[in-house]
Amino acid sequence: MNLELRKIQLEDWFTSLRDQICTVFETLETECLHPYLLPGQFQRKAWTRHDPTQENGNGGGGVISLMNGRVFEKVGVNISTVWGQFDQKFAAEIPGAAEDPRFWAAGISLVAHPLNPYVPIVHFNTRHIITSKGWFGGGSDLTPTIEFIEDKEDFHNAFRAGCNKFDENYYPKFKLWCDEYFYIKHRREPRGVGGIFYDYLDSGDFQKDFDFTKEVGQNFLDIYPKVVRRHYQKPWGTEEKQQQLTKRGRYVEFNLVYDRGTRFGLETNGNVDAILMSLPPVATWS
Amino acid sequence: MNLELRKIQLEDWFTSLRDQICTVFETLETECLHPYLLPGQFQRKAWTRHDPTQENGNGGGGVISLMNGRVFEKVGVNISTVWGQFDQKFAAEIPGAAEDPRFWAAGISLVAHPLNPYVPIVHFNTRHIITSKGWFGGGSDLTPTIEFIEDKEDFHNAFRAGCNKFDENYYPKFKLWCDEYFYIKHRREPRGVGGIFYDYLDSGDFQKDFDFTKEVGQNFLDIYPKVVRRHYQKPWGTEEKQQQLTKRGRYVEFNLVYDRGTRFGLETNGNVDAILMSLPPVATWS
Repeated sequence: MNLELRKIQLEDWFTSLRDQICTVFETLETECLHPYLLPGQFQRKAWTRHDPTQENGNGGGGVISLMNGRVFEKVGVNISTVWGQFDQKFAAEIPGAAEDPRFWAAGISLVAHPLNPYVPIVHFNTRHIITSKGWFGGGSDLTPTIEFIEDKEDFHNAFRAGCNKFDENYYPKFKLWCDEYFYIKHRREPRGVGGIFYDYLDSGDFQKDFDFTKEVGQNFLDIYPKVVRRHYQKPWGTEEKQQQLTKRGRYVEFNLVYDRGTRFGLETNGNVDAILMSLPPVATWS
Repeated sequence: MNLELRKIQLEDWFTSLRDQICTVFETLETECLHPYLLPGQFQRKAWTRHDPTQENGNGGGGVISLMNGRVFEKVGVNISTVWGQFDQKFAAEIPGAAEDPRFWAAGISLVAHPLNPYVPIVHFNTRHIITSKGWFGGGSDLTPTIEFIEDKEDFHNAFRAGCNKFDENYYPKFKLWCDEYFYIKHRREPRGVGGIFYDYLDSGDFQKDFDFTKEVGQNFLDIYPKVVRRHYQKPWGTEEKQQQLTKRGRYVEFNLVYDRGTRFGLETNGNVDAILMSLPPVATWS
């Protein structure tokens, strides 16, 4: 298939998924009643990426959709399409970039920090990267403040079912990868209850891998709103809120100390608003 | 001078400085009036460090003094004396450790997060490290939410005067080092208004270098309480508070992404409570 056509299809998918997610999340805002807070609506902010190696310095860019609402105290959904050349230091670490430093990447990234401490934080991301090779990556993981076994099970089962449509080996492999990746080493505790994480996915069949990545997006869109609806009207008090704020502190620790995407972005002059969109609206440390 | 005697003198100094600082800070708590918050008092918590290379695994430890008060929403003062062997990876980066991986280190570290947004955050730290070499390091820097030129000037002047008692080259060198070190690269903004930062200080005269490090402690003890008293009773509103919480978010970003001590501590299995004592009680991100 023509590479330029692929790029268009990829970007279209990430954009369309962003639109679907925003619509569903705004519906959650409308449904969930609150004595005085109004339902939130996403605000969009476009950003551009300067790349000195490109014509007119045009290295692509993205759009952040941010909402501060009554279900989601803060949720950011970022889509981006960027291109340019990796510098030597990074090229060595990126598949297919040592031969040729040029890259193209598109993806979607989301972190939701709910207001209600009973509603788990969620992270979702999928992306496609093209160097002299091409691959998909992404995943989704759940971080409850107060754990409910059915949330964890249903969340995992959704992605397990999605994985199993493509390859029986995917779920066990990607679940383990998620558990190992989202681990706060200095606290000796996992960030949350896991999910799936995959990277460097290139089976040799682009369409199959793309369909899998679409499936992961669909799984997220199916399961997370269900989990939200289970809890979003539950009454909560100062104690649960304090637990949530502490959990969010841990989330900050993971993202700033360990998260590869965050550190990579900060070190490569990425868009700070997009990279740090994942940080909670409020967090506490004792 | 006998090395063991030196170690005792160093540890005694850091302990005595800790006591002086805690006394002065508790006095600030008592002086500053508040309609309902009681003056804070430091609570102490000892911790031990396990080192598999040492007899009985005894790698030293420390004491955290933590206070949540009405001047200082959160202030931590940590003293520690630790010893053991650097692993190969770190030994390569530490002066005198490639030859012999054994080390001994003692120091004091403090971060204060005031309640009143007009009172600047402060960081102060001094330490002595012994490998096959021996050196002092430390410094202090001020991070106001709302800048007052006289705070910056008086803070710098205190350390400049201290430096000039020892070497005319110290202040310009250590001020620049501080500006370069406490810089939030991804935000393209300094963490605060600076101060001094020094490391690997070994003039060949241990007593002179130790006296300088004592002077830096004394400078901190002289100037910071003056700055606090200037502002601690000032009325403030939600807007100043929000500015402060945002500034604290930046402080978290610096400490978790860039601070060498924090990252070194987290990566070497240090005491998490002591290392992350610097994090604010509450912080926000928009």
